[in-house]
Order: sequence, then C-alpha cells, then structure tokens
Amino acid sequence: MGSMATVGEVGERRLIELMMEILTPMPEQPIPPWDDVSGLRLEDGRLAVLKTDMLVWRTDVPRGMTPFQAARKVVVMNFSDLASKGVKPLAFLASIGIPRDMEVEAVLEMTRGFDSGSREYGAYMVGGDTNEAGEVIVGGVAFGLADERKIMRRSGARPGDILATTGGFGKTAAAFKVLLEGYEAPRDILKPILDSVYMPRARVREGLALAETGAVSASMDSSDGLAMSLHDLSRSSHVGFRVERLPASPEAEEFGEALGIGLEELVFYGGEEYELVFTLKPELVETARRALRGVGCEMIEMGEATKEIQITYVEDGRKKTIKPLGWNHFKAIE
Amino acid sequence: MGSMATVGEVGERRLIELMMEILTPMPEQPIPPWDDVSGLRLEDGRLAVLKTDMLVWRTDVPRGMTPFQAARKVVVMNFSDLASKGVKPLAFLASIGIPRDMEVEAVLEMTRGFDSGSREYGAYMVGGDTNEAGEVIVGGVAFGLADERKIMRRSGARPGDILATTGGFGKTAAAFKVLLEGYEAPRDILKPILDSVYMPRARVREGLALAETGAVSASMDSSDGLAMSLHDLSRSSHVGFRVERLPASPEAEEFGEALGIGLEELVFYGGEEYELVFTLKPELVETARRALRGVGCEMIEMGEATKEIQITYVEDGRKKTIKPLGWNHFKAIE
Repeated sequence: MGSMATVGEVGERRLIELMMEILTPMPEQPIPPWDDVSGLRLEDGRLAVLKTDMLVWRTDVPRGMTPFQAARKVVVMNFSDLASKGVKPLAFLASIGIPRDMEVEAVLEMTRGFDSGSREYGAYMVGGDTNEAGEVIVGGVAFGLADERKIMRRSGARPGDILATTGGFGKTAAAFKVLLEGYEAPRDILKPILDSVYMPRARVREGLALAETGAVSASMDSSDGLAMSLHDLSRSSHVGFRVERLPASPEAEEFGEALGIGLEELVFYGGEEYELVFTLKPELVETARRALRGVGCEMIEMGEATKEIQITYVEDGRKKTIKPLGWNHFKAIE
Repeated sequence: MGSMATVGEVGERRLIELMMEILTPMPEQPIPPWDDVSGLRLEDGRLAVLKTDMLVWRTDVPRGMTPFQAARKVVVMNFSDLASKGVKPLAFLASIGIPRDMEVEAVLEMTRGFDSGSREYGAYMVGGDTNEAGEVIVGGVAFGLADERKIMRRSGARPGDILATTGGFGKTAAAFKVLLEGYEAPRDILKPILDSVYMPRARVREGLALAETGAVSASMDSSDGLAMSLHDLSRSSHVGFRVERLPASPEAEEFGEALGIGLEELVFYGGEEYELVFTLKPELVETARRALRGVGCEMIEMGEATKEIQITYVEDGRKKTIKPLGWNHFKAIE
C-alpha cells in the first residue's frame, strides 16, 4: 500500500484492519473487536452491547424506497447485529445528516420509521442528533443488554459443527438486479423481492431463542451477504465450511429460473440480508430447530464446519470455491 | 409551518420538537428526552447512558483543523454531554462516512484521534462503522455508566440557586471570527484561541467531581454557546437567570479589546465550548467550589436563577436580555 493510497483503492476490509491496528485495546473486552457488536461488562454478569451503522442516501438507498423505510431499515440493520449475538435490543438513538433544503415532512417520515422500527422489536427510540449535511445520512445506534454466558460470538465454530441459517437467501440480490440493473421480475414475486430491500426484518426473536439453547457455537448476521458471512465466520473461528444445500428462498429460485441467472450467484453474493448464519453443536441441532420453531422460524441446515480452512459449495459432487465477494462499500475484495 | 417547509426554514430546534412529538416515549425514562443524553435503568440503581453526535466536514470543520483533531473533537463533544450529567465515559464507537477518493492516511489519522481522545478521558474506542459517503462525516457514540441518584439533569434549578460555570467563555467566538470572518488576533493569543476550536477539552473530571457533591441542581454543557445553554436550562427547569458577572476568558477580553468587539457578544453567542453550566443549592456553593478545586478547576459564579422566566445580563445596573442565539445548524432562532 502506498502512503497516498485512497480508501477506494484499499477497500473497506483492509481499511478496517489498518484502523484496528491503531486502537488501544480495551482490557478484557468480552466481545472481540472483529465481531458484529461491541460489549462492556456490567459487573453483574451482564453485558451492555452497542452497535452503530448508517445508510448514506446517495449510495445506499435505491429508487422507490421512502424516508420511512430507510429509517426503519437503519433500525433493522443495527438490531440485526444485536440479534445475531443473542442480545435483546432495548433502545435506539438516531443520528441524521440533513441538507437545509430537505422537506421537514421527509424528516418526520424518517422519525416515524425510527419509532416504528424500534417498537416492532419491543425497543424505544430514546434520543438522537440532527446535523446539517450536504447529503442525507441516516445513522443510528442500538443498545441492548445480555447475559455474557449466552452471547453468541463469531469465534466458537468447531470442525464438524452444523452450519445453518434462519431463512432463505437471494431476494435482495434479485431486488438489486431489478432496481440497479434493469431486470424485470415476474409479476407475482416483484413485491416480495422489492420488500426484501425496502422492509427487511431483523431476526431478533430468533436470535434470542437460539441464545437460550446453548446450541450455537458461532453466529453472525448476513448483512454483507452469505458468502462474506461464511468468510467472516471462517476467519473468526479458524474453520472452513462445506455448503451442501443452497439455502435459497422460493422467490430467488423463481427469479433465477425466469431470467436465467444462476441461483448460486443470487444466494451467495447478495447482501443487506438479515438472516442469522450460525453453527450448531451436532448433538444440539434438534434443540435449536425446536427453539426456532417456537418463534415461527424453520431452520435451514446448509452444511458443516470443516478443519480445512476453505469455503466450498458442493453441488452434485462437484466442489466449487465460494469467494469473499459481496456487499462492500469501497470495492470488491480480491 | 407549510407542509412543504424545509428544514432550513423551520430551524433545528423546531425540527427536533416536531420529531419528539412523533416518538413513543419509553416508560419511566430516567432522563427526560430534552436532556443532553439518553439513559436506561439497569435494575441495580445504575443507568446506562448514551450520546451520539457528529461533525460534517464541509460545514463543521474549519480550515486548519486536521483529521486527527476533528476525530478527537467528536470524542470530546460526546464525552462532554456525559460529563455534564456527571457520567463517566467508558467507551466510544466511531461512525464515519468516507468518500472513495479520501486518502487512507487521513482515515488512519482520524482513528488516532478517536483513540487518543478516548484514552485522554480513561475510555476506549471499542468499535465503529465505516461507510462510503459523498462527503466526510465524523460521527460517534459515547457510552457510560452512572449512579442514577447522582445524575445532574437540566431540570432541577430553583429560584435563588447560584449559576456557575467551570471556565471562561469567548475563545471559540474569537476563533470563528479569525477563521470564518478574517479577523486578525493579537499574536500572543492566536494559538490558545484557535486551540479552543481545534483541541477543546471535555470537563469530565469536573462533572464527576460535581456529581459527587450533591450540590448541583441542574447542569448541561455549553456546546451550543452560553446563551443557548441558559435558555435550555431555563426551559427545562422553569426558572430564569440573572447574570451579574460575565464569565469571560482572558483571551476573549484581550481579543475584544484589540479588535473593538463587545465582550458580551464573544461570551454569550459563541458555541462549541465545552464548559459545564450549572446551578448550585446556595448552601452548597463552597462544597462545589472545593470539589472543583480538587480537580484543578476554578469555578466561576456568574449569577443566579430567578423566579421570573427571563434571561438577563445586568451590567452597571442596566438590564439586558440575553437572546436565544448561538450555534444552530440550520438557522438562528427568534
């Protein structure tokens, strides 16, 4: 890396690595710095858990999405990270940048989105901050509490653990093809596909149910896409993954077939999906399945963790490598 | 307000009022929504306290300020709000927007600023979030813990309470005159004046010392300027204020004299100052003074809280009204 390299040249992942080398680590940090959230010990065995994330209107909000939806999605993005650790979100703070010429009504719509998104998950918007900016920035902070013993980190997967997820993938990749590349979705699936981007859900009840079982050895959300999630879990847990069943949503299957797009591409290389991707101790797979059923979620087993640090998809006996590609704010990795 | 009014037309204060009408209030919120921070009860008598605030490079970062300084200042801004409530900051999370063509080194300088600012106050940067944006956004979140009984809210001032502050005002107003309006400061005070903007300090030790005394009836920081702080305390506590002594910094006095600018303007109508402005139970003024001396701070008594809801400065027997003017992102109030 040259000393005058730009952020676009090095990419977001490398940038974060370089930033983390600078930070003075907090002693006895209960959640490692590469995980989805930050945690602080409260002396009584609980953790205070924090997450902050933003949408930049110009780059992150596709056409057709309303201010209400964008604000609600920022809540979902932040709560999803807490959910993936098994942490109940309690409060949300908004942090927004607003151009002077923005209509007040649009800001109020955003506020309704923050409020509605928070209430959807039993939390409250308790504060925030507004700032004049040249472009619209929709940011926020999630706060939650959790029993430290129940936290599901990224780092505990062992070879032989079962790889699973809370739902099917591929709708957001299809939506981006419609919204950004001009593809036309079959009429009957257009709405669910677009809604996957406009009105995503955070798997909060699912994360809390899983955390209670003690079955999960590692977990994260899939906001950077399934391929990136597997690579991130691999890096934190020092295992590989062999995917044997593609966790595809029915809409992605229909979209792929109708438009001649490989299902693999839609499922692995999407992003802005908020399913939980996790590994299970083999003897507790049924416990996890029952816990998820209890909150109305049908778990999908997709493969297993391997000793060999390699992430592959095995289809009809043929082994393909899953690349660390996906949603990246600055550039594709590799 | 017309339905198509813009944010610039209604102003930040009114916008926030409208936003707060929308929010579902959290039951039994321990710190009122109009205060400097948000708080959540932890069952053991403590509060988890949160604050988020950002700088937008284009509008909030004056010429000559480095990425290190801007990032450190975001830590100071957020920690100052905690300090004003008597809350010890424990952790900081960064939230930044970065254009693709920004140099990596500038982002790393920011990271050093976040880290250094956090460590200055005994806290750690524990996480954050980077995003591609069209302009540079330097945002952050502060987290702290406090005994609920010791929290210094905005709302407890009573008529007859003594109005005081942790330090002199006017340096930042002078700095803005130099940086934005082309005034030339006398050479011997140029550096302290500019440093008040580039390298401000949060009054963390002072806030914690004051919170221990039980002497404080209301408190906030002065990031919107002294005049706005008095108006905000007035609104939350339902009292007025009579200022009898101008809490001017020596540099502001020298700057005002050299350039023919009224000291009153510099002291009241600045902003981005991080002194604590607070009221004291009259019988505990000396207790507070001693507590502040214990952390190297000389308290300035400036007047008292009044039953009449009016904010005045009495100079040589003449009473002047202090207007609710000051730092405002969108427009001046009135």
